[in-house]
Amino acid sequence: MDELTLLERLIPKLPTQPSVIVGAGDDCAVLDLGLTDRFVLFKTDAIVEGVHFTREVDPQRIGRKALARCLSDVAAMGGHPRHAVVTLGLPRDFELEFVEQVYAGLNALAGQFEVAVVGGETTVHPGHVFISVSLIGDVLKNRYVRRAGAEVGDGIFVTGMLGGSREGKHLDFEPRIREALWLTEHFPVHAMIDLSDGLARDLRHILKASGVGAELRAQSIPISRAARSKARAALPPDLADGSPAGFQLALKSALTDGEDFELLFTVPSREAVKLLDQWKAAFSDLPLTCIGKIMAGSHLLIQDKETVRPLVADGYIHFA
Amino acid sequence: MDELTLLERLIPKLPTQPSVIVGAGDDCAVLDLGLTDRFVLFKTDAIVEGVHFTREVDPQRIGRKALARCLSDVAAMGGHPRHAVVTLGLPRDFELEFVEQVYAGLNALAGQFEVAVVGGETTVHPGHVFISVSLIGDVLKNRYVRRAGAEVGDGIFVTGMLGGSREGKHLDFEPRIREALWLTEHFPVHAMIDLSDGLARDLRHILKASGVGAELRAQSIPISRAARSKARAALPPDLADGSPAGFQLALKSALTDGEDFELLFTVPSREAVKLLDQWKAAFSDLPLTCIGKIMAGSHLLIQDKETVRPLVADGYIHFA
Repeated sequence: MDELTLLERLIPKLPTQPSVIVGAGDDCAVLDLGLTDRFVLFKTDAIVEGVHFTREVDPQRIGRKALARCLSDVAAMGGHPRHAVVTLGLPRDFELEFVEQVYAGLNALAGQFEVAVVGGETTVHPGHVFISVSLIGDVLKNRYVRRAGAEVGDGIFVTGMLGGSREGKHLDFEPRIREALWLTEHFPVHAMIDLSDGLARDLRHILKASGVGAELRAQSIPISRAARSKARAALPPDLADGSPAGFQLALKSALTDGEDFELLFTVPSREAVKLLDQWKAAFSDLPLTCIGKIMAGSHLLIQDKETVRPLVADGYIHFA
Repeated sequence: MDELTLLERLIPKLPTQPSVIVGAGDDCAVLDLGLTDRFVLFKTDAIVEGVHFTREVDPQRIGRKALARCLSDVAAMGGHPRHAVVTLGLPRDFELEFVEQVYAGLNALAGQFEVAVVGGETTVHPGHVFISVSLIGDVLKNRYVRRAGAEVGDGIFVTGMLGGSREGKHLDFEPRIREALWLTEHFPVHAMIDLSDGLARDLRHILKASGVGAELRAQSIPISRAARSKARAALPPDLADGSPAGFQLALKSALTDGEDFELLFTVPSREAVKLLDQWKAAFSDLPLTCIGKIMAGSHLLIQDKETVRPLVADGYIHFA
């Protein structure tokens, strides 16, 4: 039983209330608390030692990552993060220094995004450290973006370079708060998600929620340097550089490694040129790439130089 | 290093914002999100297998407890709970039935208090189950009650019967939401906390936050049946019933066992008679007891038939 199947069983049974605009199943919940112009966003996320980090990692980077993941979810809704609470599960023999460093990393990122850390607790947890962060944010009522909403003919865009995040980026990524606010202010963003499970799976979340299909262009996927190095290291030297096998292995990383924490979103194709131009002026250091388009149906296809074929399972597993 | 010392090191370093009315260190954070008449409350709490429950416990009661603890904190601020998110840490070999039952218990309690469950996640957690719940609530701006605020001359009141909660009540307690709303509507409640660490420690939280001392009356502390049974079982038969040793052991339970999840609060003494009368009319099934008074200074004293003496450490450890 994977997490998706589990959530499909659990979500329909969750109690709701009229104030819930968007409940479980999107990047954040969207709540109408009675503010004139804004909805409140609510999100929780946990990272666990041995799954999301090891004890050897600099504890400041662990604390940073725990908060950054929640910030990335608020970005994916087009919102501002505001207030966070933190729960730290610690083995009985924890060191004070470790805890202080975790908080130092988390606090520094919170300060950078003007997020107040307003509570939390530490609890004894036999064996493994975990950090659970919950975040309140807000969003203008006419600006929030869901996973649902992608329309046939939309262009599919992604920020940054994908793949190989576990080589380091997963601990140091920049949540795309500012970029998402800019996007939703200037363009009709139909659907958005942050890339945590990998492009292939996260795009499927958008397609499923929106009831549409998509076609990606293999040559357009922005593959990170880390993904390319990984592919090179995994192949014999004669296949490593510039070979179809090298490209496909790096592409697979970009499609499936996960933890990129970039924005994946759709905007009507007619806006594509204007968007790419204005983006370059606004965020010159961060690439924005159009990687494909939304299609009728429910399939996720990928086009390479010769053919268009279904993207198999979670990745692009055909090797020429 | 205990949790209090840790928090005293961490809390001053947490980043804040002008919207934070009450930050870390009270039962909930109090936030001004821009609503006309209400502040928003924000709380997180986690329970961990092997610390707060065992795997043998009915999973519905585990889920119920995880949410109930947060509800109890919202009650202690005088607020309404509104929206919850849940994170479940599960070993790789978890059973779907277990997860569904945890949620069934949590959902049932949420429904009872009109709380919407709006998100969450399950994450693999090697070894031990944990459940982290975060809760948003709200409170009328002139009604929220902190730990700070107790004044010399206040009566100290507690709901329910104390001690022995681990015999069962800790899994089935009723969060005192309705009672706290009634209290803050009808009486000037100066300070309030929910009893999680035990009367002795939780009262000290109020005293420290308020800069006052207190004197308890040993004979007035409402000792639960479970605490009395525990004391009887722990003593030889000739000392068990009605003996000073039996009484003191049961009293120690009531003062220090913790997990009572009752309300502890202070109200000006001149209101005491009116409060006790009106309470009886409003909540006939739940005892309310005046257990002492707020004094100048910083000491916590306890008065028994013969003497007044300091309440030692976290309990009443003198045996006659």
